[in-house]
Amino acid sequence: QSSVTLSGSLDIGVFKGYQGGTQVGGISRSMFAFSGVEDLGGGLSATFKLASRFKLQDGQIEDPKSYFGAESTVGLKGSFGHVRLGRAMTALWQNDWHFDPWYNYDGIASPAWYLWHGNSAADPNYSSDGVSFSRLNNGIYYEAPTIGGFTGYVSAGLQKQVDDKHRSLSVALRYAYDQLSLLAAMERTPEDKRVTFVAAKYAIGPWQVMAAYDHEKLPQGDKNRSYTLSGQYTVGSMSYKLGYGRQQDYKANFFGASAVHAFSKRTNVYLSVGNQGKNLWGRDSSKTAYGVGLAHSF
Amino acid sequence: QSSVTLSGSLDIGVFKGYQGGTQVGGISRSMFAFSGVEDLGGGLSATFKLASRFKLQDGQIEDPKSYFGAESTVGLKGSFGHVRLGRAMTALWQNDWHFDPWYNYDGIASPAWYLWHGNSAADPNYSSDGVSFSRLNNGIYYEAPTIGGFTGYVSAGLQKQVDDKHRSLSVALRYAYDQLSLLAAMERTPEDKRVTFVAAKYAIGPWQVMAAYDHEKLPQGDKNRSYTLSGQYTVGSMSYKLGYGRQQDYKANFFGASAVHAFSKRTNVYLSVGNQGKNLWGRDSSKTAYGVGLAHSF
Amino acid sequence: QSSVTLSGSLDIGVFKGYQGGTQVGGISRSMFAFSGVEDLGGGLSATFKLASRFKLQDGQIEDPKSYFGAESTVGLKGSFGHVRLGRAMTALWQNDWHFDPWYNYDGIASPAWYLWHGNSAADPNYSSDGVSFSRLNNGIYYEAPTIGGFTGYVSAGLQKQVDDKHRSLSVALRYAYDQLSLLAAMERTPEDKRVTFVAAKYAIGPWQVMAAYDHEKLPQGDKNRSYTLSGQYTVGSMSYKLGYGRQQDYKANFFGASAVHAFSKRTNVYLSVGNQGKNLWGRDSSKTAYGVGLAHSF
Repeated sequence: QSSVTLSGSLDIGVFKGYQGGTQVGGISRSMFAFSGVEDLGGGLSATFKLASRFKLQDGQIEDPKSYFGAESTVGLKGSFGHVRLGRAMTALWQNDWHFDPWYNYDGIASPAWYLWHGNSAADPNYSSDGVSFSRLNNGIYYEAPTIGGFTGYVSAGLQKQVDDKHRSLSVALRYAYDQLSLLAAMERTPEDKRVTFVAAKYAIGPWQVMAAYDHEKLPQGDKNRSYTLSGQYTVGSMSYKLGYGRQQDYKANFFGASAVHAFSKRTNVYLSVGNQGKNLWGRDSSKTAYGVGLAHSF
Repeated sequence: QSSVTLSGSLDIGVFKGYQGGTQVGGISRSMFAFSGVEDLGGGLSATFKLASRFKLQDGQIEDPKSYFGAESTVGLKGSFGHVRLGRAMTALWQNDWHFDPWYNYDGIASPAWYLWHGNSAADPNYSSDGVSFSRLNNGIYYEAPTIGGFTGYVSAGLQKQVDDKHRSLSVALRYAYDQLSLLAAMERTPEDKRVTFVAAKYAIGPWQVMAAYDHEKLPQGDKNRSYTLSGQYTVGSMSYKLGYGRQQDYKANFFGASAVHAFSKRTNVYLSVGNQGKNLWGRDSSKTAYGVGLAHSF
Repeated sequence: QSSVTLSGSLDIGVFKGYQGGTQVGGISRSMFAFSGVEDLGGGLSATFKLASRFKLQDGQIEDPKSYFGAESTVGLKGSFGHVRLGRAMTALWQNDWHFDPWYNYDGIASPAWYLWHGNSAADPNYSSDGVSFSRLNNGIYYEAPTIGGFTGYVSAGLQKQVDDKHRSLSVALRYAYDQLSLLAAMERTPEDKRVTFVAAKYAIGPWQVMAAYDHEKLPQGDKNRSYTLSGQYTVGSMSYKLGYGRQQDYKANFFGASAVHAFSKRTNVYLSVGNQGKNLWGRDSSKTAYGVGLAHSF
């Protein structure tokens, strides 16, 4: 035995959502994870991560079919980079959330959550119950060593699921220099949907600004294009987040804003508000959602 | 990451139960929990608890629909008291078990288990498979600071489940002075059943005596009233428990007794015997059950 | 609370299996476990183990019906031996794997996996979905203290499952002297199948050689008899395993071989190849399988 880390992040809120009605539940995510690293000497390590997503309001596993649905990998890390095998996020989804103030996970305020590659499930035939948007089963995940500020990522499905046309393939390239981060990523899904995604982030003092452009090409030739512009400002224990997104083909807008009070790095309460504009995902008229949440990580 | 506590309690026995036939399984409960507290400074803390109930005889989760079925909460604790959100026991059920020598959890000998508020599920529409007797989903739980020996508790459902008439509401007030404990609690269930419960406990040297009165008012005006009288005597590593209960409307009796040998505070073996009298929950004739069990907590 | 150990073993590989087609998944097993021991004084201890088997390639629990499907026991250990109650391997299955270089768990190369007591599920009526080959629910497991190199094991089912004819009963006797290990075991399954199993292992320097004979007697009088001969050679970080087995009644052969590179005691990569001969489990013609895997334990 060696040291195993038991960690997690918990989120629960009370909100009036886009479907209407007062709800209790996660505005962001709840998960727990077992993970560890073994030093094998000579710069080599073995890694593992087993992570489970669940709903804090009722204690249910998010997808009962996949207990370690958030990640289930074992890997080797060395001068060659980091290779993992199992279930994890594709190269695109593993990287995009760094370019959204809500980490592409806030059901009320995040423009990323409502605008980025929303037709392109990473694993469309994941189960009879539904798709898995950002994660693959039976995959391989490679992160290259960082060279001159550049880091490359590749993920691939090694085995087709039933009904998959292709194996998933996803690549991403990140660049970091001082306060600037850039990302370019492409993914071909098992349904032959193609995502091209570029994003930038710049931090200056208490400010962060982010911009992203997402281009989905669907098999029949349809396109789904959107861009997002977001910012974050931190003063003392408070952070303020503001985001705007536009779906260009349907000319639909999304606005989101949050105020976050951090008790510590691990615990905060927040107020989120968002507005889905007319025509966003088929909406007849615009709709506002808002809620308060408590988040804690361990 | 911070320190996370992994704890649990395990119980398995061999018994002849009230349904007849020799069985292997829990006479009391088996569960494990992840929990933690983060000190936020200024007397404030963040808390979480994720607890799962399972059957030790076969390793199955007790209710497959709810993995963290025993508790799934995150909360804040300070001079104002302790507020939790998520899934947990209501104010009534969180407190009543202190007034039963078997902690309201022994399928053979506990009069509380068979007599207290047995028509009044805290969450009657919990799932298509069954009710949840003592716990709510989507709830808020408040424990007030103790003042002059008094501690108040309130719990409420924040979101109705399908088929719920009302949101659950439960209040409890406990008083502790020296060796005396008192409890008064009321709960209105989502089916509009009303429970009033009062109890007292007095400890003197190796003796503990407990009494409780339970009054259920059902929607059509029916009543279900019962009282229990119990005692416990401890000498060396042995404890002896004796309990009597009476359902007043059906004039039905219940008797229970246990002898417990403690190897340590965390590990014991016990012998339990109980008798359900005629008319208890529709019984034609009285029935005796008995068994031996091994309990361990970690 | 006391110290709880969180441990596990992970395995994932890419292989061409006996069903054909490239697959990603476990060639050996993946599991995690919570376990602990409490010193009760006077040479007595309480023990528990809760172990779950899952598939690393997709994060799914192996049998969704049984969360702690690998083991779910609480026990007492002392000068009298070790008694456990709950779900665990029978006396036969708990011991046989010591006599196979692949620990009776390699879907490609292990002759044990394909030849030993393959008709005799320890729990044939485990669930509507399938049998449990090596483990019992509702069981008692006894390991006697070692005397003069001999250790006895007994396991028994305490409660019949639906459709069980008998309660399971299994006994095993192991002998260890210097570099020699011997095993004799017998099991009667709930379907009245009878297994007799004898095995030997001898270690000399970097070499280990193993032999086993398995005799299954089925209810209608049919027999299924097989023997296996295996060896292992270790030099530096490499281990080489070679195994042969023969099913005598159908005159069917099995060959397996592996090369293992150990990064540490806990992490290795391996190459496995195996051949199922004609007539083995009804095969029309022989079939070769091979794959590479990564294994890590924590």
